[in-house]
Amino acid sequence: MAPTTTATAAAEKPPQHARKAVGLAAHDNSGHLTPIHISRRNTGDDDVVIKVLYCGICHSDLHTIKNEWRNAVYPVVAGHEITGVVTEVGKNVARFKAGDEVGVGCMVNTCGGCESCRDGCENYCSRVVFTYNSVDRDGTRTYGGYSDTVVVSERFVVRFPSAAAGALPLDSGAPLLCAGVTVYAPMRQHGLCEPGKHVGVVGLGGLGHVAVKFARAFGMKVTVISTSPAKRQEALERLGADAFIVSTNASEMKAAMGTMHGIINTASASTSMHPYLALLKPKGKMILVGLPEKPLQIPTFALVGGGKVLAGSCMGSISETQEMIDFAAEHGVAADIELIGANEVNTAMERLAKGDVRYRFVVDIGNTLKSD
Amino acid sequence: MAPTTTATAAAEKPPQHARKAVGLAAHDNSGHLTPIHISRRNTGDDDVVIKVLYCGICHSDLHTIKNEWRNAVYPVVAGHEITGVVTEVGKNVARFKAGDEVGVGCMVNTCGGCESCRDGCENYCSRVVFTYNSVDRDGTRTYGGYSDTVVVSERFVVRFPSAAAGALPLDSGAPLLCAGVTVYAPMRQHGLCEPGKHVGVVGLGGLGHVAVKFARAFGMKVTVISTSPAKRQEALERLGADAFIVSTNASEMKAAMGTMHGIINTASASTSMHPYLALLKPKGKMILVGLPEKPLQIPTFALVGGGKVLAGSCMGSISETQEMIDFAAEHGVAADIELIGANEVNTAMERLAKGDVRYRFVVDIGNTLKSD
Repeated sequence: MAPTTTATAAAEKPPQHARKAVGLAAHDNSGHLTPIHISRRNTGDDDVVIKVLYCGICHSDLHTIKNEWRNAVYPVVAGHEITGVVTEVGKNVARFKAGDEVGVGCMVNTCGGCESCRDGCENYCSRVVFTYNSVDRDGTRTYGGYSDTVVVSERFVVRFPSAAAGALPLDSGAPLLCAGVTVYAPMRQHGLCEPGKHVGVVGLGGLGHVAVKFARAFGMKVTVISTSPAKRQEALERLGADAFIVSTNASEMKAAMGTMHGIINTASASTSMHPYLALLKPKGKMILVGLPEKPLQIPTFALVGGGKVLAGSCMGSISETQEMIDFAAEHGVAADIELIGANEVNTAMERLAKGDVRYRFVVDIGNTLKSD
Repeated sequence: MAPTTTATAAAEKPPQHARKAVGLAAHDNSGHLTPIHISRRNTGDDDVVIKVLYCGICHSDLHTIKNEWRNAVYPVVAGHEITGVVTEVGKNVARFKAGDEVGVGCMVNTCGGCESCRDGCENYCSRVVFTYNSVDRDGTRTYGGYSDTVVVSERFVVRFPSAAAGALPLDSGAPLLCAGVTVYAPMRQHGLCEPGKHVGVVGLGGLGHVAVKFARAFGMKVTVISTSPAKRQEALERLGADAFIVSTNASEMKAAMGTMHGIINTASASTSMHPYLALLKPKGKMILVGLPEKPLQIPTFALVGGGKVLAGSCMGSISETQEMIDFAAEHGVAADIELIGANEVNTAMERLAKGDVRYRFVVDIGNTLKSD
């Protein structure tokens, strides 16, 4: 691959740091990714320098490179499911050393002083700096994990367990850093992690299939709710769900009414929440982690009548991410992935747009993204 | 007043028990209330017989007597904010004796065996028997507190504290049995009861004004959010709210964005939740206790972006009701009421329909509802 620094006329000039790096960038809303030379900052006192080995492809990456959320500032180097090996640390860094296996998720900085930061839910800091397509505290743009190197403040790096502690693979573990914690954090926060409880998972994609795995690891009964009857066998036999419901099958939905303590709703299409809320027991909780474009429609009685809860959740804190990684290692939870080379990312994006992936593409950055 | 047993042609025949009682009944969807002879069951082994002294008028009463919820079975004897004095108890009743001051709220029976009943949230039992316009376990219709006598299973009777324990007035305490617990229970369940936290109260009516009082008793900062600028002085000076926002005033709403840990939304008209959700801090919770007829409209990001919670809540359990009554007695919380005679109920209903009451009508049953 031949990296290029050529950017489109509309794009910002990439920031110039001393450390050279290469990446895969989108330059316009075609979303087409091409190699790019970028730079990374020198190792600050609190920084961890990471040689990126793997990076998952999240649906957010696709939305951003195509500017579907209308906030892309090109060139965009996406990727926030990053795993790799520490190559260098700043002088204040005590928790990591060269050679450590680590991960970086959706954010690389927060203000540190607001109520959310102080309360350990810095993922809701209003000044959060996202891993890519964001403005870092030094004013430069952030570039993500479709790149050979990242330099990240220690506070936003999580440790991957050593082999002795039950190693988590760096490739199939990478998607946990976004998809994983996005479902794990609300399951823990809202008590949907207790053995014997019954949880529904709406949507069997990148997030949903990991939610099924975490739910099973928690010892819960898991029912997958999907629009696609074709996923029944997959859900029951491969992922080990206890039951499967086609959401458009009225009799299946009716039979499951009032049976679930909670639902993790990963769907980004459906906006009618009533049928799902009906599946909940009294005081049951439905957690939304997807982002349907149209407003939700909710008959008030569907919430009030049973004292039910509809909650949103976005990413997870760093402490939740570390806890999730440790839990995943202990219980053998990882994503089901298709490992691809850096030269396959554009094809992968096309397939992702069609939902044609089981369940997460992971780019083998370490072996396939070359600087020459 | 001349009680009558004449019912409309469409009405069911009132059940015939041995114990004679009188009440005020609606006989059709005019909602007009007239005296009626009814009967109450003999004292069962687990029963508490109560001479009704006061009964609050809840908006639900108005909806039901006018059949606005299309479930009225006439004659309807409404009233589920009942206080009075025990006159007799069944042989198994240990917690109450003649002379005790007690209250009865929205329900008089549940199945006792379902998960909700076992978990102490029997208000969500699917077989709940409401205090009026419901079918009791013996197949008879239930009649509420617009009546001189009620016979209620011990399990659904709450104790009013004695004078020694800081007595709660039976008149202004009556509305706590529905309005009070409806706001108190979710405030406790969802942690909106911690000193120093900031809670918003949407709507300053029967429920809202009690929510303000409980929030103050919890030591919280309270902001009232109302469509009516005319309520500002009332909210701040009489009820002691810390702040007041007119919900249609964009600058006031904007200034309060992201400041509240929770909101108790008592409104039954507004269906756009976005402006209220914006007032919440990250992880903030809005509790719906009203029942707007139209579906709510909720942009998903308004929940997901800040990890926010939208929860419904309906009534409260008996243990929550007892806890609330004890708390109210200890902290001097009661409803602001207009005490009326039995002959004024129809005028009161007309005024209630126009929102012309500050904040709850209570019928002086003991002194004004006569059997002859």
